Amino acid sequence: MIFMSKPLKCFVNIDGKILPLEKAKISVLDHGFLYGDSVYETLRTVSGYPFQLKGHMDRLFHSAKGLELPIPYTSQKISAEILKTAMAYWKKFGKTELYIRVIISRGFGDIGFDPALCKHSTLIIIIKTYIPTPLKLYKSGITMALVKTLRNHPRSIDPNIKSGNYLNNLLAYLQAVKHKAHDAIMQNQEGYLTEGTTNNFFLVKDKTLLTPSLDSGILDGLTRHLLIETAKNHRIPVVETKIKPQALLSADECFITSTLKAILPVTHCYIDEKTIPIGKGQ
Amino acid sequence: MIFMSKPLKCFVNIDGKILPLEKAKISVLDHGFLYGDSVYETLRTVSGYPFQLKGHMDRLFHSAKGLELPIPYTSQKISAEILKTAMAYWKKFGKTELYIRVIISRGFGDIGFDPALCKHSTLIIIIKTYIPTPLKLYKSGITMALVKTLRNHPRSIDPNIKSGNYLNNLLAYLQAVKHKAHDAIMQNQEGYLTEGTTNNFFLVKDKTLLTPSLDSGILDGLTRHLLIETAKNHRIPVVETKIKPQALLSADECFITSTLKAILPVTHCYIDEKTIPIGKGQ
Repeated sequence: MIFMSKPLKCFVNIDGKILPLEKAKISVLDHGFLYGDSVYETLRTVSGYPFQLKGHMDRLFHSAKGLELPIPYTSQKISAEILKTAMAYWKKFGKTELYIRVIISRGFGDIGFDPALCKHSTLIIIIKTYIPTPLKLYKSGITMALVKTLRNHPRSIDPNIKSGNYLNNLLAYLQAVKHKAHDAIMQNQEGYLTEGTTNNFFLVKDKTLLTPSLDSGILDGLTRHLLIETAKNHRIPVVETKIKPQALLSADECFITSTLKAILPVTHCYIDEKTIPIGKGQ
Repeated sequence: MIFMSKPLKCFVNIDGKILPLEKAKISVLDHGFLYGDSVYETLRTVSGYPFQLKGHMDRLFHSAKGLELPIPYTSQKISAEILKTAMAYWKKFGKTELYIRVIISRGFGDIGFDPALCKHSTLIIIIKTYIPTPLKLYKSGITMALVKTLRNHPRSIDPNIKSGNYLNNLLAYLQAVKHKAHDAIMQNQEGYLTEGTTNNFFLVKDKTLLTPSLDSGILDGLTRHLLIETAKNHRIPVVETKIKPQALLSADECFITSTLKAILPVTHCYIDEKTIPIGKGQ
């Protein structure tokens, strides 16, 4: 831990065994490390309870199916392990809201693609204190950059599989930072908007909510889903469609959604080599 | 090791420290594990010396540059560490030809995209005995399946960066196996042939060598490069171009190239839901 300014408060559960961070290790031959051959979900607690737990568990199993990755646990068992790890964390560090990352890795095995090389997928739960996005960003809004990196094609690596292959998003993020933006928005290969690096994307135009359709090649986000349902219940029109980047220039408002950020306003956009306000920029 | 029928003979070097496999571990917070945020090269020894060492080192640094991943060692230092680990392996297990995997991972850091979270990239060298592809496959040739998975787009994740994001190739491989093929060949989004999951691809037609051009979205393979140079020196015509899958149907011969397999004949191809011979199928 000599490189960290202060140690991370973090508890890890590997296949049911709760470990402090410094002992939470995997083999260099874990296929999650060699190939990014893993799936994951990010959750947070609200009032001490994992928010949208069932939705996250369902999606974890959906992602695993997409990779033909067996999960040797039921979702009830995984939920129980999350709770067990949370209790241990609270006992050690005091009661706080939690960030929870659940990973299923292909596990240990000789180098090679044959899934039979790995005898046992590994469940890893990482728990730490949930640090909310600073309140001032909810007031000022953030800047998103339209970047050159294109979102993965669904027939290459499906964005609807939450996997350990995250370089596409990381490369987009690195570009966004160069443009002094907080995050990136990626286009698909047809030039339509898709999503941020860890979030879905909405526009408001003439009191209608617009968001990229699932067939734009995006993750079916749980917060996105919840928001669409809520809007419909309040008779706010929602259109899921293919959206060109030019729509950013004429939008009244814009925001992103994710489990960790909920709904965060986007007030500026970097596009065509300049940063411009969205709507009134507020 | 209870899941392995026999223990793997393997030595690992992590940042200069040589470890037996069971002690060669990384943190679950290593970004190579969380995001596949790593680059690698695969080498083998020929007569005890790492083949094309300089070419592999150059490409490792090229890949790392593409991810803005700092390598805290010179290529001379990495080469010296490879040799040190090889010597330890030979001392323990006897002199054999070696498989060598060199990985640079972003390293340990809190969860998040900011590269500054990781203070120190990690060098990992994995060494084991090189197991050649069975001779009978060089005689019979292999079957390649044209699969539905499309090769990553160079503007999504550049195939010329050898990274820990390998699911695109893995998904293609899983499909190939379903079609009873040994490996997959992927198309790009324009429908042109690209490469196998761990190899480049050549056709022979009318005594001319044809291979997908680099702008088809492929890895600039070292064996591919060596073969093209050798062919030119022997006045064998070589055409690097965009190749449609239909070319498989009329090819005289076909083969793949890679560091581990050198040149391996492809005598059959699964295409349009059937397996057909290539040329005379020999």
